[in-house]
Amino acid sequence: MNELLETLKSKLATISDLQSALWILSWDQQTYMPAGGIETRAEQMATLSHLAHELSTAPDLGELLEKLNGQLDPETDDGALVRIAYRDYQNDTKLPGDLVARATRAAIMADPAWAKARETNDWSLFAPHLDGLIEIARETASYIDASAHPFDALLSVGEPGMTKAQLEAMYAALKEETVPMIKAISEQHDPQRSAPLFGNFPVDRQKTFGWMVAQQFGFDTQRGRQDLSVHPFCTMFSSDDVRQTTRFEPNWLSPALFGTLHETGHGLYNQGLAKRFNRTPLGHGCSMGIHESQSRLWENLVGRSRAFWEHYYGQLQETFPEQLGGVDLDAFYRAINTVEPSLIRVEADEVTYNLHTLLRFELELDLLEDKLAVHDLPAAWNAKMEAYLGITPPNDSEGVLQDVHWSGGMFAYFPTYTIGNVLSVQFYDAAVQAHPAIPDEIGRGEFGTLLSWLQDNVYQYGRKYDPNDLVERATGRPMDTAPYLKYLKTKFSELYEL
Amino acid sequence: MNELLETLKSKLATISDLQSALWILSWDQQTYMPAGGIETRAEQMATLSHLAHELSTAPDLGELLEKLNGQLDPETDDGALVRIAYRDYQNDTKLPGDLVARATRAAIMADPAWAKARETNDWSLFAPHLDGLIEIARETASYIDASAHPFDALLSVGEPGMTKAQLEAMYAALKEETVPMIKAISEQHDPQRSAPLFGNFPVDRQKTFGWMVAQQFGFDTQRGRQDLSVHPFCTMFSSDDVRQTTRFEPNWLSPALFGTLHETGHGLYNQGLAKRFNRTPLGHGCSMGIHESQSRLWENLVGRSRAFWEHYYGQLQETFPEQLGGVDLDAFYRAINTVEPSLIRVEADEVTYNLHTLLRFELELDLLEDKLAVHDLPAAWNAKMEAYLGITPPNDSEGVLQDVHWSGGMFAYFPTYTIGNVLSVQFYDAAVQAHPAIPDEIGRGEFGTLLSWLQDNVYQYGRKYDPNDLVERATGRPMDTAPYLKYLKTKFSELYEL
Repeated sequence: MNELLETLKSKLATISDLQSALWILSWDQQTYMPAGGIETRAEQMATLSHLAHELSTAPDLGELLEKLNGQLDPETDDGALVRIAYRDYQNDTKLPGDLVARATRAAIMADPAWAKARETNDWSLFAPHLDGLIEIARETASYIDASAHPFDALLSVGEPGMTKAQLEAMYAALKEETVPMIKAISEQHDPQRSAPLFGNFPVDRQKTFGWMVAQQFGFDTQRGRQDLSVHPFCTMFSSDDVRQTTRFEPNWLSPALFGTLHETGHGLYNQGLAKRFNRTPLGHGCSMGIHESQSRLWENLVGRSRAFWEHYYGQLQETFPEQLGGVDLDAFYRAINTVEPSLIRVEADEVTYNLHTLLRFELELDLLEDKLAVHDLPAAWNAKMEAYLGITPPNDSEGVLQDVHWSGGMFAYFPTYTIGNVLSVQFYDAAVQAHPAIPDEIGRGEFGTLLSWLQDNVYQYGRKYDPNDLVERATGRPMDTAPYLKYLKTKFSELYEL
Repeated sequence: MNELLETLKSKLATISDLQSALWILSWDQQTYMPAGGIETRAEQMATLSHLAHELSTAPDLGELLEKLNGQLDPETDDGALVRIAYRDYQNDTKLPGDLVARATRAAIMADPAWAKARETNDWSLFAPHLDGLIEIARETASYIDASAHPFDALLSVGEPGMTKAQLEAMYAALKEETVPMIKAISEQHDPQRSAPLFGNFPVDRQKTFGWMVAQQFGFDTQRGRQDLSVHPFCTMFSSDDVRQTTRFEPNWLSPALFGTLHETGHGLYNQGLAKRFNRTPLGHGCSMGIHESQSRLWENLVGRSRAFWEHYYGQLQETFPEQLGGVDLDAFYRAINTVEPSLIRVEADEVTYNLHTLLRFELELDLLEDKLAVHDLPAAWNAKMEAYLGITPPNDSEGVLQDVHWSGGMFAYFPTYTIGNVLSVQFYDAAVQAHPAIPDEIGRGEFGTLLSWLQDNVYQYGRKYDPNDLVERATGRPMDTAPYLKYLKTKFSELYEL
């Protein structure tokens, strides 16, 4: 048994190293690679992907896993390792190699078409690619689980245990509460409310301030760093080497400031994974939704709270005296929490955000069920924007073409952002219940108790427990939208005196 | 035949992609990796090395190469590809896997021991590691060619066609000419001669100036970049993605300035490799010596020439007016060409440099032939320093422990630096013979003719021709020390009025 386990660990370590190498190549591509390197980089990444896929689907790995599966106590690390590795193996081998290759190629070809379509505002350039990608997604879903709804099949890989039905219930609850809230807030529309965030914010000072907060949150600069990229992200090559990126707007404070707090949330999770899980399939975040809950927790629950700014606003004013010297704390707090229906998901406020992902969720269902043709997607998008947010995109670039996900073949992904929002509050509330001093500590710029609780109850476990299991162990109950809705209602009723 | 060739190219492309990935990981380790990432990075690199070795020594690759070897015109690209790939395969398979693993492990363990020994000036910490590494080198040599001198066996891998006997002849000629030259120059010792290079040289301005020259040499910033590292180097992930590094001393102009010109020489070679050789074993420099000839050509033949500074010195003075405003061109030209016996190889001037590599060459021969025990190496080092340069290191850190090479198991390497010096003049002379206007062009800051000649006669070919063949094709004769000696004599006789 021990010998089999050692052989398994060695095989999994090799696969993990190859995947880490892929992420290093991808990080470099997005941060430092000179433009001319793109063609050979694509080849290098294709080769490493191919080798990693070969190793992850090798028959001798499968035999080993079949021998070990169910033999170990699932509460132990080794038991969890076998369980997760076996599930990964089953998922990886369900897909025929030529489908994986076709999917990769289709996404690579769709990317420049999407970029061009967005740039020139011409849906017809992207539409045929999306047609093919949806066909591949349907085919993929049928290999994963032919008896399930295609959305459920696709969702099961990144969010095991989550279902379309649960998402529908979650969104129904969110819609019921937030649509009227947004309507009430819209009636107080004040274009000056967010004005303090626009002006001259020198990039070097933005960087210094954001990085100072990241470190005070607990991000360890001996085991991670920050660089620049067009699309901010956080990646890891092990829990000891975590890379986050950001992008600075010299005339707009929010993107880099809240973007840094957001990516730091991902980074704290990655750095908090148990060191003994490095080079194993357990050494990653539990799911996309759980990961997102941590970026949103640090960005919103901490970083957009009044307590946080009671401590930090003086320092921010000293950093940007010309811009913020005459703006008081209340006005700043109102500015960073402005609610306003807007076109672009990634710039949306906390209240309207989930309607952006709901819209995409519903459209994906229609596309996968063949109720909606790609040709009619832009009109369907605009109709839903009007229905949920009361605004119609002036063009497809700011509408249906805004996100990169579909061009990369990523379906059943957008709802994980809203799962993250919902869970961010559930985890935060559980931490505060265990340690009621946390909000006061945040008001003193102290984050150690909160981080320790998250570390002990979420981060360290990696993929050891499935998402639902982890949520129950950490918070004492399954995922629940009620605390999140209560949070939104309390915070924004007060802010807007509803 | 064509089908076999396509299969071969696909296998070689996979190996090449894996090696490029390794170089990306290594570049990142030396530039941006946070300190905490070192352990997992070592594992990632070990895994990729192991996979690359497995693929490069796979029996089906060998069978394919045996079928193809000798079947194609060696003057064609495909013929050269088969020839070089077959030689690489033979070299790679000569070494038993466990020896490769032992060598890798011994070098990994020796590195911190060497660093500690150098830091604490304690030879005894490193000596047992070096003992083991020499034993491994001897064993490696016997697997490569048991009938050859171990130095020749080791040399044949990195410098095919070069022999210990040729190196001995080269060094004998260099010694005969340069030892008396150094003695004559020493008699005019003037500690103020190099003073203009020391002072306050703000790092950002050093960077701007050096990078401007690199681009005017012809380095393409769309296909390469410069970053910082403790030990400057140049690496490539393809001819379209070339990375050079440098290190700035705020109080000393030379290291970053001439270091940048040096690494740019390597960079121009890497960028000049034929694009069609990317992802093949032909898409690299011909040998270590040929590569070094290009870094030395651009650093010394161009960058330390009077013509070059006639054009650029005004700009350098404008860049550092406080430091250089009162230093005239002649004084600056003398300063950057100061000849002075010194302890450290990498800081040595053009005349004394080769005695540093000669000393190491001779000591390696004695070690490999078991004429010298590792225990007695420091004393032997100091005796040779005294004999060749008239100075005795005050401690081992500035003597026998200064270089990283031996701790990495790199033997038969140091002479390639001197091969580079010798060939730099031979290539430059051939270019000037073909285009006599080159020196005048350099005096106008124009490098296009020189670069084109090197591109056409050296860079594009990569490993298509063996080093001796390439030298003969480009310069019309085999490697010859006479032009190099003539260059040194002419330049430094004039500078020192000998």
